Amino acid sequence: MAKYPKIPEATIRRLSNYLKALLDLESKQEKVASSALIATICNVNAAQVRKDFAYFGEFGIRGMGYNVKELKFHIKEILGINRIWRIAVVGIGNLGSSLLMYKDFLKQNYKIVAAFDIDPVKVIGHISEQMGKPVEILHIDNLKEVVKARNIEIGIITTPPQEAQKVANLLVDANVKGILNFSPSPVRVAEHVKLRNVFFTAALDHLVYYMSN
Amino acid sequence: MAKYPKIPEATIRRLSNYLKALLDLESKQEKVASSALIATICNVNAAQVRKDFAYFGEFGIRGMGYNVKELKFHIKEILGINRIWRIAVVGIGNLGSSLLMYKDFLKQNYKIVAAFDIDPVKVIGHISEQMGKPVEILHIDNLKEVVKARNIEIGIITTPPQEAQKVANLLVDANVKGILNFSPSPVRVAEHVKLRNVFFTAALDHLVYYMSN
Repeated sequence: MAKYPKIPEATIRRLSNYLKALLDLESKQEKVASSALIATICNVNAAQVRKDFAYFGEFGIRGMGYNVKELKFHIKEILGINRIWRIAVVGIGNLGSSLLMYKDFLKQNYKIVAAFDIDPVKVIGHISEQMGKPVEILHIDNLKEVVKARNIEIGIITTPPQEAQKVANLLVDANVKGILNFSPSPVRVAEHVKLRNVFFTAALDHLVYYMSN
Repeated sequence: MAKYPKIPEATIRRLSNYLKALLDLESKQEKVASSALIATICNVNAAQVRKDFAYFGEFGIRGMGYNVKELKFHIKEILGINRIWRIAVVGIGNLGSSLLMYKDFLKQNYKIVAAFDIDPVKVIGHISEQMGKPVEILHIDNLKEVVKARNIEIGIITTPPQEAQKVANLLVDANVKGILNFSPSPVRVAEHVKLRNVFFTAALDHLVYYMSN
């Protein structure tokens, strides 16, 4: 994908936030958005918004603001979410269950198509809901087979920390292309698999830095 | 706090990750860490690690690596978490419950001292655990009073999206200084309160960008 230049991490984060703002505006039937409005929603300044968009070409009409639908399309294209990504969630405790019910995933083309756990009670008895549709919880022993059969590309780890690396290895072995690890224990994988270890403490660190300074 | 220069957002994120790595190394009794080791754990390159630390003065000893304990102290000081931060979690569904049990908060001086919900069944019947200690769930009607009595400075919102703004207003009214909103609906608050809207989709956007490019 050489259509867009390589984007710094901070810009990707802002694009992701802009997209969130645009989805929100769209759900409120807004068709046009000024850089000032997007900036307010995303807690940045309007010049930054204009600069970020200008980086990718001419999106807005001077004095008219941006077409919400068009801008949404472009950002999705830049980020690579202009198509459905099929996801498995592994570890259906509190956090895993909350991800299964997180309504914004589907809005952004993230589709959870499988859920796994090691606990036979959950596997037999428990069916979670995603967007009103039940998601059956499968035993982790079936992970490899199901990941292949359902064309799953991304695995999300929401197990206890002591299981996280084991699950990461299973996911890599099943040929997923990307892993998001929400357990507090960082995992490591071979370089051909993209990985993000996400820590809840990071959001607090960031908030507290701004509260202290 | 003019001791350290103003730090760009991307650097704060990396510092937060380095701290996570150091806590992990400390728990494994490691006393010294090279920039290469920290870099590997955090998925950045070693030159970036050295550059980030050099920004704040002379932390390492040439050829010897960094003293884990000392470096941890400095990063905590820079981020503002060299003291306890008292936190309330509002909305004790799946996500709220998982935060109450997230073991790394306390390790990093984040102490959840109150949990609130609107559901009387949870309020009467449910006691969650934080680090083995029970956290009583209180009715949200008591929020203002409890936030003041327990010197709570940070509120974490884990309610359904349609309740998020209402809860943010309650927290502001109770004089918290910072809000972390984990609900998928962004909230807005007066400027004197620091705010971070955290979206799970952002972590996926970021992962998918690297998977696509």
